[in-house]
Amino acid sequence: MGPEYVEVKKEDFHKYADRGIQAGHCMLYARLPGHEFEGCDLRAAVLMQMRFDGHLGFPGGIIEPGEEVLLGLIREMVEEINFDSDKIMLSEHNHVVTHWNPKGKILLHFYALEVTEEQIRTIEHRALDSIDFGEEVMGMFRVPLYTMSDGCRGFPTFIKHSFVGSAYAQLRRGLLHAGIMSEDEIKAAEAVSCTGKSL
Amino acid sequence: MGPEYVEVKKEDFHKYADRGIQAGHCMLYARLPGHEFEGCDLRAAVLMQMRFDGHLGFPGGIIEPGEEVLLGLIREMVEEINFDSDKIMLSEHNHVVTHWNPKGKILLHFYALEVTEEQIRTIEHRALDSIDFGEEVMGMFRVPLYTMSDGCRGFPTFIKHSFVGSAYAQLRRGLLHAGIMSEDEIKAAEAVSCTGKSL
Repeated sequence: MGPEYVEVKKEDFHKYADRGIQAGHCMLYARLPGHEFEGCDLRAAVLMQMRFDGHLGFPGGIIEPGEEVLLGLIREMVEEINFDSDKIMLSEHNHVVTHWNPKGKILLHFYALEVTEEQIRTIEHRALDSIDFGEEVMGMFRVPLYTMSDGCRGFPTFIKHSFVGSAYAQLRRGLLHAGIMSEDEIKAAEAVSCTGKSL
Repeated sequence: MGPEYVEVKKEDFHKYADRGIQAGHCMLYARLPGHEFEGCDLRAAVLMQMRFDGHLGFPGGIIEPGEEVLLGLIREMVEEINFDSDKIMLSEHNHVVTHWNPKGKILLHFYALEVTEEQIRTIEHRALDSIDFGEEVMGMFRVPLYTMSDGCRGFPTFIKHSFVGSAYAQLRRGLLHAGIMSEDEIKAAEAVSCTGKSL
């Protein structure tokens, strides 16, 4: 058994793309400086979704044969979350990381796009009227990005959910890339075992 | 160690209520007859939410001392999902089950309210403008209520997520109560171990 996901450099994309299929996903986020709730710093609104298959993941999907990755990703975002690509620009500058899954023979491109708090709210509203809403996408939510006073609830509890494909690895990279969380903070949350159910 | 949750009859509510605190939660749902996606019968739009603590749960919360359970639940629904209590009536007829948690000393009242597909869409839109959105509530989604062709994705995958308190027991009872799923279907989904990650 080899590794589940291998990081691939830009110059090698074409080698892997020829061996399988490609997908693109995007983390949309807005910083929320000074926003606190119950003593927790909310940090940012980072959007993920409940998918048709019951896993958590990011908006995006499979790139069609011959389609440019960025254009395919934008097409998927229009379908899944009614993304307003005229008003919000996603570009190759927003590329964060690309993973190759040797078992599934899929090259997974991941982007992260920062928007304003007002834009995040518009994105959340528009998503409910997407073509795919209620079918491929069951709903969007913001990721809890703090650890509550019991040392367990919040981010440590959230990351125990089941994520599709490389979505958790992508969230991790996205949070580091955006400087929303540090490697140490993420590792500390990963080390917490949340066995007790909260009320 | 006694049982985690004990079902309590209406005539005994007062005995337990005196020993601890009370909470009320509600499953809002709309039937979606004839709605299919990728060969799966969608059945219904059943709303749950991503909570501040990272668990999945139903709208609702703690009843204040001296407050009527139903009124407290409606107050919480107004706060959490901007529930339009003038247009949508929640009553004692919608009560499904009440559980006592001996460890937490909490009496958990559960209601299920059927609305139209149009009302569910309005509820989803309004929820984004609630007082608690982005704080106590991180987003709403529909529960996947089918099993996909691999026998794993969909409902069996969904129920592996972490739920707050008795929320999973409540979902189970709500689905049976509404006739959306049978006991046999739920047991079959519970027996599936979804170890492989889907792409």
